[in-house]
Amino acid sequence: MKKKLSPDEMVKKLLAGDRRAAARLITLVEDEMDEQHEVMRQIYPHTGKAMILGITGAGGAGKSTLTDHIIHKFREQGKKVGVVVVDPSSPFSGGAFLGDRIRLQSHSQDDGVYIRSLASRGYLGGLSRATHDVIRIIEAMGMQIVIVETLGAGQDEIDIIHIAHTCLLVLTPGMGDDIQAMKAGIMEIADIIALNKADLDGANSCIRHLQGVLSVASFMEGEWIPKVIPTVSVAGKPEDLRGIDELADAITEHQAFLRKSRAIDKVKYDRVELELGLIFKDELEKLIFKGLKGTGKKKEYIESIINRKNDPYSVVEEVLNTYLVQGE
Amino acid sequence: MKKKLSPDEMVKKLLAGDRRAAARLITLVEDEMDEQHEVMRQIYPHTGKAMILGITGAGGAGKSTLTDHIIHKFREQGKKVGVVVVDPSSPFSGGAFLGDRIRLQSHSQDDGVYIRSLASRGYLGGLSRATHDVIRIIEAMGMQIVIVETLGAGQDEIDIIHIAHTCLLVLTPGMGDDIQAMKAGIMEIADIIALNKADLDGANSCIRHLQGVLSVASFMEGEWIPKVIPTVSVAGKPEDLRGIDELADAITEHQAFLRKSRAIDKVKYDRVELELGLIFKDELEKLIFKGLKGTGKKKEYIESIINRKNDPYSVVEEVLNTYLVQGE
Repeated sequence: MKKKLSPDEMVKKLLAGDRRAAARLITLVEDEMDEQHEVMRQIYPHTGKAMILGITGAGGAGKSTLTDHIIHKFREQGKKVGVVVVDPSSPFSGGAFLGDRIRLQSHSQDDGVYIRSLASRGYLGGLSRATHDVIRIIEAMGMQIVIVETLGAGQDEIDIIHIAHTCLLVLTPGMGDDIQAMKAGIMEIADIIALNKADLDGANSCIRHLQGVLSVASFMEGEWIPKVIPTVSVAGKPEDLRGIDELADAITEHQAFLRKSRAIDKVKYDRVELELGLIFKDELEKLIFKGLKGTGKKKEYIESIINRKNDPYSVVEEVLNTYLVQGE
Repeated sequence: MKKKLSPDEMVKKLLAGDRRAAARLITLVEDEMDEQHEVMRQIYPHTGKAMILGITGAGGAGKSTLTDHIIHKFREQGKKVGVVVVDPSSPFSGGAFLGDRIRLQSHSQDDGVYIRSLASRGYLGGLSRATHDVIRIIEAMGMQIVIVETLGAGQDEIDIIHIAHTCLLVLTPGMGDDIQAMKAGIMEIADIIALNKADLDGANSCIRHLQGVLSVASFMEGEWIPKVIPTVSVAGKPEDLRGIDELADAITEHQAFLRKSRAIDKVKYDRVELELGLIFKDELEKLIFKGLKGTGKKKEYIESIINRKNDPYSVVEEVLNTYLVQGE
């Protein structure tokens, strides 16, 4: 019979780089098992050193292929790379799995690469919270770079991108006219922009539009000005590859900028602040529901709201006053 | 000088059907002004009677045009229609605004239609919470049907769809092979499926796939089996229109089913439960941050986490123990 490992044993194996321990611990986090907090407490001191690279962009922009080439580039530099692919699972994302399987294959013989997909459906604490912990688990197994790849739509996903140190936005030509409208979003998210499929019509005009939007005048002195890099990355056609070296250089340059300007401190601060908020919400919700559980009160409250005898805001106020007392 | 209306006055005007009052109250909810709770308390008793229709589907499926035709159909039946268009604002959604403006124009002379776009960026409580209140405001101004149109990707949006009584999923041909993979999502979300662009190649095969997935065997006795309706709806080409009458009939039929089977009770219960959870989380977060405010503690905690002297889970536990005491 297979022996079930204790969480402590799994963490020990994880820190030694064990892939199966990583997989199990990620599942534990995904399933929000009771051991999650204790496990993450043990892992936490072993994290904080990896570079976190966010890669985002609309569906069809070629994120996966580009990510794949970036992984290879980092591997050439001798760095170990973990990847979290965040899939905002919708009933319409049926095609995502196949692409992932192909990618996994390309690195399956390489112990220096660990790839994991996360689907957003069903996390109590939202996608962001699980992702925080998964990044840490991957880091703790010894990966020096953790790539977080997302579709970049929706608040949850934008939050995820904010936990990256360096964020690469993948765009494609043909969105020339839309770039002005996207200005705020681009400036909020992108440290580096890959204009992928740069061999297509409209690439030059798109680059001009981007450079207009990202003119020096839009930034304060000492701020990082996003770099625009034309890329071509077709799956299985290495001879057509363009811009990957420049992309890797830009990432290195942005990392150096973060350290030199101490902007990395703010990135780290914001990430912890964001995460604390998420954990607080979850824990408080559990406290409240524990207080209500078994009393039949919850059903009563809900029915009084449905019947318009009460309203949601008044109920929340009442429950908070009943079940929580502010200390000190 | 223009007199600023008090929230009470705005609510009074809203209940009389005033469009400007509606617009202002929605902005108040979007901005999470202090008056939000009081305003929603006053509005709440005047809600709960409208039919809420969710319309969802991937970008490019033709949701907007289809929604437009459905609005016209309801207007022919003499019903007043409100629409909330939920735009998961991403840096890549630059094109959304234009479509909306065109649509607004088509109904701008009609007092029986009220359309409002919501962008997801920047809501503290997430998109779902604001949407709940916006639906109520639109209902309270006298709309008998409230349509919620979303892109249907991401947890927030799937939550929104769950507050609809009847949910219409818009698909297009060419996803034939993906339908099996989407089965769970389709069954979770769709009460009615519009196979839009049904004049394109692959429509028949797609319908066969859908009918296979939605076979009677997949459902329990007494459950609603989603209807598949081929539609064609090209903007500005009324002569090519197909399937809109059938769609309207299916919506009516599903509404009748909900009432007859009492399934509507569960829909309403689930909605209140979902919303209570959202409000709880927000209010609890405010409580906690109020407790920490001005003490300098928050910065201290965050820095101890960054320095790996502490971890997020332990900090949350400590703060909860310090600032909250469980009552009773």
